[in-house]
Amino acid sequence: MKNKSVFGIGFDIGGTNIACGLLDGEYRIVEKLSRRFEPLGEDGIAASMLELSRALCEKCGASLENAAYIGVCIPGSVDAKNGVVIDAYNLGLHDSAFRAAVERTFDKPAALLNDADAACLAEARLGALRGTENSMLVTIGTGIGVGIVLGGRLFHGGRGLGVEAGHVQMDIHGAGCTCGRSGCIEALCSATALARLAESALGEAIALPVLVERAKNGDPACKRVWDEYAFNLGNALASYINILDPQLIALGGGVSGAGSFLIDSVRPHVDKNSFFRQPTPVTIAELGNDAGLAGACIYALESL
Amino acid sequence: MKNKSVFGIGFDIGGTNIACGLLDGEYRIVEKLSRRFEPLGEDGIAASMLELSRALCEKCGASLENAAYIGVCIPGSVDAKNGVVIDAYNLGLHDSAFRAAVERTFDKPAALLNDADAACLAEARLGALRGTENSMLVTIGTGIGVGIVLGGRLFHGGRGLGVEAGHVQMDIHGAGCTCGRSGCIEALCSATALARLAESALGEAIALPVLVERAKNGDPACKRVWDEYAFNLGNALASYINILDPQLIALGGGVSGAGSFLIDSVRPHVDKNSFFRQPTPVTIAELGNDAGLAGACIYALESL
Repeated sequence: MKNKSVFGIGFDIGGTNIACGLLDGEYRIVEKLSRRFEPLGEDGIAASMLELSRALCEKCGASLENAAYIGVCIPGSVDAKNGVVIDAYNLGLHDSAFRAAVERTFDKPAALLNDADAACLAEARLGALRGTENSMLVTIGTGIGVGIVLGGRLFHGGRGLGVEAGHVQMDIHGAGCTCGRSGCIEALCSATALARLAESALGEAIALPVLVERAKNGDPACKRVWDEYAFNLGNALASYINILDPQLIALGGGVSGAGSFLIDSVRPHVDKNSFFRQPTPVTIAELGNDAGLAGACIYALESL
Repeated sequence: MKNKSVFGIGFDIGGTNIACGLLDGEYRIVEKLSRRFEPLGEDGIAASMLELSRALCEKCGASLENAAYIGVCIPGSVDAKNGVVIDAYNLGLHDSAFRAAVERTFDKPAALLNDADAACLAEARLGALRGTENSMLVTIGTGIGVGIVLGGRLFHGGRGLGVEAGHVQMDIHGAGCTCGRSGCIEALCSATALARLAESALGEAIALPVLVERAKNGDPACKRVWDEYAFNLGNALASYINILDPQLIALGGGVSGAGSFLIDSVRPHVDKNSFFRQPTPVTIAELGNDAGLAGACIYALESL
């Protein structure tokens, strides 16, 4: 790091790892470090974050004192305005004033966001959704995370409790979702759902890149799995379009690694099932895994 | 009409009838008249509107000259900002600058809204959604019409092309919808869907109030139909809640005539399938059939 004056420190807290990044004034991640942690309550997690950021500063010769703010994103329901984690099952946090714990620990102002929302904000400011006022990021990983930008700002839900659009139901008689409903978009369109579909059709587990490569090359069994998945995902996106009429949808997360093959596969289903004559364009997210961390910092600066 | 100075004239244009109302300064409909018409193009429809409003003014001794503005709502996709009907199949209007035709014909400023949006705005200002900032009206009639208020204002969709939330899919393998998709919320939850469900289960058509009365009184066959319908509708509302997290949902249209019996029937399904711990309350709309007409006038005044 040439300039030792740090603008922001971002954290992306997962179920087993914390990633920490130092960001410059343009939200570029100039240094990054990740390590395993034990989620031992809000103060315990904040202490792990402090330790990790000290190690990162030491590694690159920066001073933690120079950090102006902290941005944190987590997997779970967040009341962003009040800095409260409503439910984050794999962090063991429920109705937790986690932002306050972070601010106390670092003695700096902090912002707290859901990870899908954070990634969406980053894509809207720096990535695939740049220049849009009303758009969505659909992150396709273990689950489905959806962030929505409306009027150029992150939409936190009508009661400020966040967006859980992965739990819009698309198959009322379908397989159970982790949330307890049947046939949620997450249950049919997550990377987990694709893996399950593939394993059930092929009789064995298959790595996603292998599945994609074989489907591309016309392997009939893999192509059938991929086509069924694309049918499901295209239908899910069309439902989002019919309710929100977004200008653009970006796809992120593991499955989005299939790139233009994914877009080309879902496109016909999106077009056929959109109510609007001009279906919303669908593209691949640009910022990858660092989007959440950067988005949390952007939110910190924009909301402070 | 005591005071002959009219504030606004509202029109609710259906497939076969136009309703026209004179509204006072508090958006109360003081006089109303409805008649059949032939939808003969944008200028033809505007001419029918003028004729009807003249008849109404004559009937109640008001002067059309005193009307300050016109509010119009129609069944179809509307670009409200630009006053354009995108598609209104039963009016035969497509990409029609209908607002301009109305303004030309009346020589007064006009506003144009989709009918579900208009009813939603009226409920938000005068009815069941009064006092909410982020809420929805779900009108359950021949189809499903959904209006959304966000930040206290009508949400026109991210591209301004309107909201078509009746065409969110809830049964990917289900029966065809009028829009061409399978298993849309409209295909499972409209009054038409309920009537079809009842006819198929009972072997003959049944009037909605009779079905409701019999289900209330514990008639087993009618109760089964009603319970299945409530299951579908409750699931649909839960999906809206999971994506938008509204403060309140009001139900309007024919099926909402079942009142608290409807609310009590859908409530358990809404609660069970909402991701949020505190499910959004669901209530019955207050303004009835005149909501669209009043909402169009409110929109006219608020946007002029």
